[in-house]
Amino acid sequence: MACIDEILNDSTSGSTELAVRIFHFFAESGLTIGELRKASERINSRFTGMALIRNVTSLSLKMAEDHSFYDIPAIIERQNEAVAGIAAEHIKERKIVTISNSSMVYDALVSMRDLEEVTVLESRPRNEGSIMASRLRDRGIRVRITTDASMCIAVRSCGTVIIGSDSILSDGTVINKTGSMPLALCSSYSGKKFIVLSTEMKIEKNYSPGNYPELVSHDPGEISGDLDAINYYFEMVPPDLVSEYILNSGIKKGWK
Amino acid sequence: MACIDEILNDSTSGSTELAVRIFHFFAESGLTIGELRKASERINSRFTGMALIRNVTSLSLKMAEDHSFYDIPAIIERQNEAVAGIAAEHIKERKIVTISNSSMVYDALVSMRDLEEVTVLESRPRNEGSIMASRLRDRGIRVRITTDASMCIAVRSCGTVIIGSDSILSDGTVINKTGSMPLALCSSYSGKKFIVLSTEMKIEKNYSPGNYPELVSHDPGEISGDLDAINYYFEMVPPDLVSEYILNSGIKKGWK
Repeated sequence: MACIDEILNDSTSGSTELAVRIFHFFAESGLTIGELRKASERINSRFTGMALIRNVTSLSLKMAEDHSFYDIPAIIERQNEAVAGIAAEHIKERKIVTISNSSMVYDALVSMRDLEEVTVLESRPRNEGSIMASRLRDRGIRVRITTDASMCIAVRSCGTVIIGSDSILSDGTVINKTGSMPLALCSSYSGKKFIVLSTEMKIEKNYSPGNYPELVSHDPGEISGDLDAINYYFEMVPPDLVSEYILNSGIKKGWK
Repeated sequence: MACIDEILNDSTSGSTELAVRIFHFFAESGLTIGELRKASERINSRFTGMALIRNVTSLSLKMAEDHSFYDIPAIIERQNEAVAGIAAEHIKERKIVTISNSSMVYDALVSMRDLEEVTVLESRPRNEGSIMASRLRDRGIRVRITTDASMCIAVRSCGTVIIGSDSILSDGTVINKTGSMPLALCSSYSGKKFIVLSTEMKIEKNYSPGNYPELVSHDPGEISGDLDAINYYFEMVPPDLVSEYILNSGIKKGWK
């Protein structure tokens, strides 16, 4: 079982992986309700940007409080599988660009037949895109990696852009890995679809960009040595840049 | 004096610095006209994307052929100084975002009074932005570095975006460091000016995007280890995304 510090210091896992670890931490920690509430607050404020984490800590606290039971890993897995299945069925383009290391995007891509090529943005500063690219190559998919700076060049040569999501706000705003916003703009400029994969568990019904907690700024030293730096892991993409949302419950047209 | 291989292998110097080294190579190499012509072809095809290099090799060959004399470093310096002066006078915003390590942008920024802050994109894969940020800090300017992926976050918090240029084509298309195109899109989306600094020596009168030589693709290993990669150092920004061109001859309104 992960200890809370291990969870708080994790800056490379995707939200699905993190959510499962957090669920196990809550289910097996032996902490009191009061202690779990405090742990939940620390986790939520560390991972603002990830609706799944907020939903998992909330369900886990509810389980601890009223002795209910939710098989959270199974719920997450079922929802992710549904999204991957719908995406693989629905998306017809065979040259894809993506960013970061989304488990939903990975599952969708390995389910798609006759993919020609996937181009993954490296996704600085943690380079999760390189992990994604290696995983896809290991499944026999032809893959290219590229700098985030090259995103418009990548988009111009692809059929469609697919990204995962950490949260979908009530107005359709997507919160995802930083770089998603310029990637959406490149897609829009090039006339390529910008498709967002998400699940019901990642929807933040009570939040819009106006009341959303401020996104966390990370250690400048990760980017810059001794220079001051901007280092947000997540950013918002407004709904008018989204072509389609693919959810476990089905496809929703975007505003683009 | 640099030897030709040192010049061909240089992938971090800006075009101004490279142009001066190439001029000295031509002026002092002791090669025959035929050898200089071949050297010129190799240099031009290595540095497609940099109009200044093409103009300098062409002027240097002319000097060798007809015993004329151009003090190329002085011409470049005069034009750069004029641009920096006009830019420093003209640009009123005090929070600037830029990319890469343009000597013209550097000269303009250090000439501007009361700058509040400059944010520099790191400019992968060679990270020239980090060099620029350190140089600006050494001149007492408050500076932040950021990943290329964070460009929209950076633009949202700035007053204007200023970039240098490696070439300006006949229709106003700008060739500059990869990342300039998504940066232009972020500027446009955020309603911030996108200002391009350039000189007469960087104008390619005979080229438009339609007949421009294919931009050079660089070693994938620089980005990806053993994965295939997209690695272009330069990309084109169409004129409809440019707010203003600041040239040594004056300011020209863009199409944006």
